[in-house]
Amino acid sequence: MRAAIIGGGVIGGGWAARFLLNGWDVAVFDPDPQAARKIEEVLTNARLSLPALSDVPMPPEGRLTFAASMAEAAAGADYIQESVSERLELKHRVYAELQAANGSAIIGSSTSGFMASDLQKGSANPGQIIVAHPFNPVYLLPLSEVSPSPANPPEVVERTMEVMRRIGMFPLHLKKEIDAFLGNRFLEAVWREALWMLKDGVATTEEIDESIRMGFGLRWGQMGLFETYRIAGGEAGMKHFMAQFGPALQWPWTKLTDVPEFNDELVDLVASQSDAQSGAYDFRELERIRDANLVGFLRVLKDRDWGAGKVLREHDAMRSAAPEAGLELHRQVLPAWIDYNGHMTESRYYELNSHAIDAFLALIGAGPDYVATGRSFYSVETHIRHLGEAKLGDRLTVRLQVISADEKRFRSFVRIERDGMLLATIEQLCLHVAAGKSGPAAPEVWEKLKAVADAHASQPMPEGAGRSVGQRR
Amino acid sequence: MRAAIIGGGVIGGGWAARFLLNGWDVAVFDPDPQAARKIEEVLTNARLSLPALSDVPMPPEGRLTFAASMAEAAAGADYIQESVSERLELKHRVYAELQAANGSAIIGSSTSGFMASDLQKGSANPGQIIVAHPFNPVYLLPLSEVSPSPANPPEVVERTMEVMRRIGMFPLHLKKEIDAFLGNRFLEAVWREALWMLKDGVATTEEIDESIRMGFGLRWGQMGLFETYRIAGGEAGMKHFMAQFGPALQWPWTKLTDVPEFNDELVDLVASQSDAQSGAYDFRELERIRDANLVGFLRVLKDRDWGAGKVLREHDAMRSAAPEAGLELHRQVLPAWIDYNGHMTESRYYELNSHAIDAFLALIGAGPDYVATGRSFYSVETHIRHLGEAKLGDRLTVRLQVISADEKRFRSFVRIERDGMLLATIEQLCLHVAAGKSGPAAPEVWEKLKAVADAHASQPMPEGAGRSVGQRR
Repeated sequence: MRAAIIGGGVIGGGWAARFLLNGWDVAVFDPDPQAARKIEEVLTNARLSLPALSDVPMPPEGRLTFAASMAEAAAGADYIQESVSERLELKHRVYAELQAANGSAIIGSSTSGFMASDLQKGSANPGQIIVAHPFNPVYLLPLSEVSPSPANPPEVVERTMEVMRRIGMFPLHLKKEIDAFLGNRFLEAVWREALWMLKDGVATTEEIDESIRMGFGLRWGQMGLFETYRIAGGEAGMKHFMAQFGPALQWPWTKLTDVPEFNDELVDLVASQSDAQSGAYDFRELERIRDANLVGFLRVLKDRDWGAGKVLREHDAMRSAAPEAGLELHRQVLPAWIDYNGHMTESRYYELNSHAIDAFLALIGAGPDYVATGRSFYSVETHIRHLGEAKLGDRLTVRLQVISADEKRFRSFVRIERDGMLLATIEQLCLHVAAGKSGPAAPEVWEKLKAVADAHASQPMPEGAGRSVGQRR
Repeated sequence: MRAAIIGGGVIGGGWAARFLLNGWDVAVFDPDPQAARKIEEVLTNARLSLPALSDVPMPPEGRLTFAASMAEAAAGADYIQESVSERLELKHRVYAELQAANGSAIIGSSTSGFMASDLQKGSANPGQIIVAHPFNPVYLLPLSEVSPSPANPPEVVERTMEVMRRIGMFPLHLKKEIDAFLGNRFLEAVWREALWMLKDGVATTEEIDESIRMGFGLRWGQMGLFETYRIAGGEAGMKHFMAQFGPALQWPWTKLTDVPEFNDELVDLVASQSDAQSGAYDFRELERIRDANLVGFLRVLKDRDWGAGKVLREHDAMRSAAPEAGLELHRQVLPAWIDYNGHMTESRYYELNSHAIDAFLALIGAGPDYVATGRSFYSVETHIRHLGEAKLGDRLTVRLQVISADEKRFRSFVRIERDGMLLATIEQLCLHVAAGKSGPAAPEVWEKLKAVADAHASQPMPEGAGRSVGQRR
């Protein structure tokens, strides 16, 4: 599949990265002579973070090209995403050129505020143009607000939603057109209130940011406004919450009945406070810090199958029919895995062995479903050799060999490698347990276990197997 | 130390839990006959989550009592937190009673919107009353907005901040008084906008929640508004961002110039949509899901020493004077450590061994300061035996024995026990490395290492040491 990305700024670059890492070819058009460098920088950050969310192999990265014209980028594209400046007449000109070059691909717009009906004005084929509004960083945040006008046929809406799902996003279909959609209206409300606070000298940019990220910001990454308040209502529920806090609607709790004047003074105030707050980092550093944090949050939600984590799981499921099962895994070393020396902590090597064992157990039919029947393999003894060091971002291959097996146990030998260099080996003995006692595995499990053990019987005994700690070679 | 908690609802209960788990005795006053049960339920959830954020031992839990009167709760308290209903005349009556019973303890108010000056009106000792406004769940979210009036002496402000820090919170000192402080003004702005959307049929409660938690909500748990936008400004910085989005201030992007009428119809609309969205869970379930998510987020930030994670690290540092050094450690099995079977995952045994090795290295003068000089001990080989299973909440003893040592290496044997029952042993060989090469440790380190090795030389070789995987006994 091929996507055309029109406009290669922060948002366009983020779209390009998301499509590329999901295996689409991407043609970018942006007259900025710096566009290629900027997109390469976004892509570097995306490559460090997006794959860390996946538990199935990422597809081979798509091919990135830069087109000399809009028409060249659009020709042959299956989907077009427009992320040019927020000027309506510019967008209209862009659509005219794109539609002349490609009459069938949907044109999704990243516009922050224009409704699809505004965008479609003057177009001979308005149904081709729709809003698909993302949030920065586009390669990590799942939300895409899909906002059609009545001129968009239902199949255009559905195709847009499907493109979003294919690249791992959460398309939120807005049923009614509204300026700025949902997310930006909330952001704008908070932004206005925050600007008043700065202007009135009530708080600095840093204090405002702390008031968000130390409090309700943490809540909103996993539940939104209403589900959070539902809990606050306690046993008495949402009606009680409304009764308790409803009256505040009439109180002077916001200055939102007015808008601060946007002038140089206000800009300078914000910019100078922001420098004081965050100036120690350049924006690429901040970006990497943010991405690492977001990857952490998203992995937490994925572990718990909740919110955005559900989207990640569904995307995994879309890309892989079965849970990871096999003798070889691939893992990238994540920020949380490293110690103060910048090396992967030793317990993570053992954890990778556990992943490998889990994938092997899934392969032989002894995965979670089998465990649910009260039977499973337990590890009883493990020997680990540390031969090299993995660092942040390293791509590791984890490969399992069966050394020996019978109905009641197997001995595994796992190699952890980076680019063919052996970093660690883990030898382990697992015993089969049923109803709390050691005993033979189910016949169908033993059959599959035996098949792998027989296949591996011809391999030489691995160097390092059978060692005790400190034993001479 | 002793805290008095006046009002035992969702917020009061959260404060009680945070104080108790941080080792304070707590006296609660609440005339509600259900108060004891409700607080016990909040405490149950807090016990499952707050300790999972700590990497130093939690202090013994404080004693919880229920007082028959406000005066009884307040007498002898070092700090008083008031969380009664948002009715100013009620709060004034409460303060009069509290001040009669205790003239010295600071009275912090959880008020959502009243300024300290409002609260202090009519009081003989206004300086004793201050705002300390938390966010739900109080036992997990670090933010406490500390908002004094000019009547509060600086030492009252500082003492309030210090109490907050002692119980692991992030006190945000507001320099100017303002209705509803910072966080609630933002929440109110979003709330008003959201109610309009519901009323206008633009989106449902569920769609609104998704628009938050799939997008900007994830960002706000780790950076706030301004730092996030700084990144969006890219290379051109904050001024560019302002120039790009400033004009939208004049656009009709919110309905915040007006307030929806608060009536039964609106309440029913919200309540029925919220039921459809979240009704499958009762609120205690939702609370546990939320807490598990928040613990995950907070651990992510702690791993990265960022935002709320910095607060957690500082709180750990406050509670443990020196890095753990010694031959014996105590650890409680935390929620994050268990697998889907309810057992501690095997890599955590190895992690406990790493903790034990770190504490041993600190003991012999080879801790982080030594590592900073370019020298350290690296583990090369490890043998683990799994003999039993640790479960959630188990208190484990981790004990290290030195089997042998010379200038360049030592062999350790770690036992992990619960109530004298051996659950696992870990034998490990560590090599000394300087400037990337194996070599002798610094003389002063070797001296201390030798002293421990000599002292342990009389102990018998541990059963299980020197084994290879699967070796017959």
